[in-house]
Amino acid sequence: MNRAFLTLAATLLASLPTLSQRLHSPTNKLALSFQLGPTGEPTYQLSFGSKTVLKPSRLAVLVQGQPGFEKGLTVVKTDSAQADETWAPVWGEVKQIRNRYKELAVTLQQPGPEKRQLRVRFRLFDDGLGFRYEFPEQPNLKYFTVQDERTEFNLAADCKTFWIRGDYDTNEYLYATTKLSEVGPKNTPSTPEIGVQVPVAPNAVQTPLMLKSPDGLYINIHEAALVNYPAMSLLVDNARFDLTSQLTPDATGAKAYLQAPCHTPWRTVVVSDKAPEVLTSKLILNLNEPSKLQDVSWITPQKYVGVWWEMHVNRSSWDYAKVNNIKLNQTDWQALKPHGRHGANTANVKRYIDFAAKNGLQSVLVEGWNVGWEDWYGNWKEEVFDFVTPYPDFDVQELQRYAASKNVKLIMHHETSGSVTNYERRMPAAYQFMQDHGYDAVKTGYVGRIIPRGEHHDGQWMSNHFVRAAEQTAARRIMINMHESIRPTGLHRTYPNWLANEAARGNEFNAWSQGNPPEHETILPFTRLMGGPMDYTPGIFQIKLEHWNPTANKGRQVHTTLAKQLALYVTMYSPLQMAADLPEAYEQRPDAFQFIKDVPVDWDDTQVLEAEPGDYITTARKAKGKDEWYLGAITDEQARQSRVPLTFLTPGQKYVATVYADGKTADWEKNPMSYQIRRMTVDSKSVLKLQLAPGGGTAVSFKPTKAAGFR
Amino acid sequence: MNRAFLTLAATLLASLPTLSQRLHSPTNKLALSFQLGPTGEPTYQLSFGSKTVLKPSRLAVLVQGQPGFEKGLTVVKTDSAQADETWAPVWGEVKQIRNRYKELAVTLQQPGPEKRQLRVRFRLFDDGLGFRYEFPEQPNLKYFTVQDERTEFNLAADCKTFWIRGDYDTNEYLYATTKLSEVGPKNTPSTPEIGVQVPVAPNAVQTPLMLKSPDGLYINIHEAALVNYPAMSLLVDNARFDLTSQLTPDATGAKAYLQAPCHTPWRTVVVSDKAPEVLTSKLILNLNEPSKLQDVSWITPQKYVGVWWEMHVNRSSWDYAKVNNIKLNQTDWQALKPHGRHGANTANVKRYIDFAAKNGLQSVLVEGWNVGWEDWYGNWKEEVFDFVTPYPDFDVQELQRYAASKNVKLIMHHETSGSVTNYERRMPAAYQFMQDHGYDAVKTGYVGRIIPRGEHHDGQWMSNHFVRAAEQTAARRIMINMHESIRPTGLHRTYPNWLANEAARGNEFNAWSQGNPPEHETILPFTRLMGGPMDYTPGIFQIKLEHWNPTANKGRQVHTTLAKQLALYVTMYSPLQMAADLPEAYEQRPDAFQFIKDVPVDWDDTQVLEAEPGDYITTARKAKGKDEWYLGAITDEQARQSRVPLTFLTPGQKYVATVYADGKTADWEKNPMSYQIRRMTVDSKSVLKLQLAPGGGTAVSFKPTKAAGFR
Repeated sequence: MNRAFLTLAATLLASLPTLSQRLHSPTNKLALSFQLGPTGEPTYQLSFGSKTVLKPSRLAVLVQGQPGFEKGLTVVKTDSAQADETWAPVWGEVKQIRNRYKELAVTLQQPGPEKRQLRVRFRLFDDGLGFRYEFPEQPNLKYFTVQDERTEFNLAADCKTFWIRGDYDTNEYLYATTKLSEVGPKNTPSTPEIGVQVPVAPNAVQTPLMLKSPDGLYINIHEAALVNYPAMSLLVDNARFDLTSQLTPDATGAKAYLQAPCHTPWRTVVVSDKAPEVLTSKLILNLNEPSKLQDVSWITPQKYVGVWWEMHVNRSSWDYAKVNNIKLNQTDWQALKPHGRHGANTANVKRYIDFAAKNGLQSVLVEGWNVGWEDWYGNWKEEVFDFVTPYPDFDVQELQRYAASKNVKLIMHHETSGSVTNYERRMPAAYQFMQDHGYDAVKTGYVGRIIPRGEHHDGQWMSNHFVRAAEQTAARRIMINMHESIRPTGLHRTYPNWLANEAARGNEFNAWSQGNPPEHETILPFTRLMGGPMDYTPGIFQIKLEHWNPTANKGRQVHTTLAKQLALYVTMYSPLQMAADLPEAYEQRPDAFQFIKDVPVDWDDTQVLEAEPGDYITTARKAKGKDEWYLGAITDEQARQSRVPLTFLTPGQKYVATVYADGKTADWEKNPMSYQIRRMTVDSKSVLKLQLAPGGGTAVSFKPTKAAGFR
Repeated sequence: MNRAFLTLAATLLASLPTLSQRLHSPTNKLALSFQLGPTGEPTYQLSFGSKTVLKPSRLAVLVQGQPGFEKGLTVVKTDSAQADETWAPVWGEVKQIRNRYKELAVTLQQPGPEKRQLRVRFRLFDDGLGFRYEFPEQPNLKYFTVQDERTEFNLAADCKTFWIRGDYDTNEYLYATTKLSEVGPKNTPSTPEIGVQVPVAPNAVQTPLMLKSPDGLYINIHEAALVNYPAMSLLVDNARFDLTSQLTPDATGAKAYLQAPCHTPWRTVVVSDKAPEVLTSKLILNLNEPSKLQDVSWITPQKYVGVWWEMHVNRSSWDYAKVNNIKLNQTDWQALKPHGRHGANTANVKRYIDFAAKNGLQSVLVEGWNVGWEDWYGNWKEEVFDFVTPYPDFDVQELQRYAASKNVKLIMHHETSGSVTNYERRMPAAYQFMQDHGYDAVKTGYVGRIIPRGEHHDGQWMSNHFVRAAEQTAARRIMINMHESIRPTGLHRTYPNWLANEAARGNEFNAWSQGNPPEHETILPFTRLMGGPMDYTPGIFQIKLEHWNPTANKGRQVHTTLAKQLALYVTMYSPLQMAADLPEAYEQRPDAFQFIKDVPVDWDDTQVLEAEPGDYITTARKAKGKDEWYLGAITDEQARQSRVPLTFLTPGQKYVATVYADGKTADWEKNPMSYQIRRMTVDSKSVLKLQLAPGGGTAVSFKPTKAAGFR
């Protein structure tokens, strides 16, 4: 009887018409539909008004040694929900963030007696879609290994695409701008300067991926809340414009080891017909969990200088001696013969401390302070650094005393050389060392191939490591800034001590490679920065690097004007901003440096006034707790004129606008250091004329006139 | 001119006759010759008097991305040396060890302008050969990756071989005894009880490998001082009787990441025409580095009991509750509903402490004390245990107080479940926890597949981990005993806090599998124990395990007699010996238990009186600092009679011999618990008649008679 009944029920289910669910965003801008295909394969599609964003796209998770969640599925339950709430970030671009969405959760079941279930949860916002796979608690799915996730994002047409090549270990590639149909090896920029390159596949690209459809939609595909899962790349079908997820494998080829109940990160599709709305979307932050930290009083957005750029421009070095066969635990560091070019020496660090103190910058990063740099890179060596032994010429105690006396903080540097097992073993002692010596912030680095060998920067094991580093530093009230990390996915909401990441091609490439072309900084906010703040290290004043070392830097220069370097402090949001150039570069141009001294790193409001990926961005931001505004405008290699109404200013209030603009004959290549500063009084009815040189920019500060007083 | 000269020199070198070097052992028992073959391939051969031990056998190391050290080599230098010294181990089988050898070091050079060099260093002892590969400091070989080592051990004939299958992750196999020509899958015992098996190749075997040649030579092949290198297996050529080394790969297939100057472990060949001389060889210890520890006063050889066997015989359990989906950082342990069978509860541990105190045993091991056991095995999960959180019914503070009041030490237990990244992260906190709570010894475990995933128990990364664990515990004055570890290679000389390892099929298998056949313990000293002490956990009195749990243990029993369990304390050397059975088992047989109370774990002298691998072993040992002797005799499944002259006793001294023998009708299977104890007075002229039952043994203590007093 029972068996007969079950058979009947199964037959009924199988003969049901294919099920379709539809969901509209809160103000109906976007519409999502979910459907089971004829063979029980789940698909979704997304539209923006009458325009198709994504054609029917499949959803699938394959499991090792078990049937996958791919087809033959039935819908056992659907749940709807909606939310409209407002929350305040610990720091950020705006004071408050609205989280408004409609939700659909579809629970799917495999055929067979195990009745394994997968739930797909969609959250549809007015500015995009987030969805994730959830594995509910259930009797026949506990521990399992994800062999593959095959999530499709099938675009409706041959979009203009801003892409870097998919790679399991680096995201420091140059961007290419092509049609989707042209993505591939032919159009991949050559980047021999990147040491470790492990391409995913010929036609793979990384997220955040920025697209512009022929019918004018701006579409950004990424992920949110990447925890305990590998990062996702996308495989491009040039003919069909279909994108399919490709997860980063571990050493055995598996993708993720999971234990139900659990879920994947959110897959995100931000979409708008206005490019600025992509930049101001808070969808990814909204899909992350609230802060796990109770006390955040010690977290301080800050500007810093550092013993750093002087190494990049070959004025000094990270290493202390010329030996090339270091064994960390055997070398007698005191006996090494110094070569005399070591940057992180006590006197030099004091010079930076003095400079920071004099100019109101909070902190000084020092790289190359700890032993091991003679032989640190490229050997896949496990014991590279110990994070607690300074070079003989770096006096930890004295610098602790000196920095404290000047009310400046030192930022610790932990380069792991990719040897993460070594770093994890030493983290407790390294963080203890920091606390013992007054450090409350650390910059980490992961240059080189990962150890455990066979793991990748973007795999599940490493994604857990980065979260672990954020957690363990938070537990000791330490802020963290990770370089060569996995690409950010908004986790700084959950761990607000995780101030910034590199995870893209930073300003440093301008010092020793083909550099970053002038369009680079107009693309980054649409791609890498969608996931979170970047420690891009702007503020290079001495654009022509031969100035510092004519021999070693022959022909090298930064690929922007000086004024554009200032504008980047506004266009590239980060709560941690470096004044990256040498103190002497700033001392030569105190008028321009005033903008870096003034510009905040935490904001109450942000308005993107105009933007087009790859071409230009103009952003205005309101300082935290003050009626001061700052504007940054940048362009690519094309000169640009624009008229910007200052409607963002408080009506009725007069402001002194200080405009840091390109000089009349400025040009990123031929005359990059020409700038002009002018002051004027403006109000919300004023219109600002911008005149950007090729590769140029403009930075503006707006401070209330004294007459009006401060509010 | 220069170039012409170089060409000429190269021609001269190439036309040199193939070079041969010969070396004799100190008393000429063994002879070694080294030769470059016609294509410049290095080979060695070894003979014992007129008998060939090893035919010409090649030596080769292959390097990733570079020419290997395989052929085309020239000899650029040979060095000879000899040594004869005596040293005292911190603990051991004998008071002093003589290290006497002759040495030959051959420096070989590759053709080509890089002139890369490899040195082969041979040390020839009267009881065998050790050799290793050395990579001297040189301009063109710094960092390199060993792709393969192809060291041959080419036997002269079809030896009788005592072998377990080569495996990268386990050494808990049953031994097979076959001819070399018969090694292979057909003759591999079935061992479904072993959870993780990663066989090397169909015809691979593990070291220490024991062989007996048709002309009566006993040959043991192993390695010494395995540091920063993977463990070696041997591939067997059934037709030619050639053995070739096979190193354990890492996740990428590479074998070892090295940095010159450096060297491999020693490859060892112990050889004698007398089996007992294999057992007393100190060659492997002599090839290890002296102790790195300055202060060894805190290192204490010891006997212990433990909350352990009661879990194996299903009287209690490691876990505390019946849940099977634990998440270490999320589960509320206090809220778990206990199932009432948890062994490591405070009251039960106190019972063991009382028992240890009463019987003069130094310590109590407690397994299952810390949270995570509900779900600990087989899921390749990284966060399994935290090593610092006790179950709610295990009162750490109270047990610390109680044990101290009874002058008993508790032994900590750290089961890693193979998740070594997790353990390494937590080691500092775990060892601190031990120190805070009065623990000075730890038993570690590595059950399951290793994390970092793709690594193996026997790879280079893990060999470094085991040494790291020894070092880090030593730094905190903690003794360590590793289970499921890499096979030992004499490193306890260098790290004398590393008391013992399991690393073979221990007594525990008798509790829940097909067990260990009676011959098992006559093979282990010739194989696994060649590398160092084993925590075999002897002393099971309640041989028939149905006694403890008739349902769960139906038909299960230990495969020895009770008397043989006593003899194992002498035949299986370890400075750490468990009295493995339950206290109540001992309390029922206080007369037999007296031997366990008496038997030392540290010795001034050891004499193997008779031995044949797979058949029998009779060993006598002199207690440390006392004129007391202890004898153990064991046999395989055959009954055995023997007459042992007691010539080892001090001449003129009378001793009370207490003989713990098998009962007259004893039989390991049918009547295993029958034993008889008799006392007699003996001296060095006496002859002891041994009568061993099938699967039986005899243990004897010799204490000076009171009349003679103690020396």
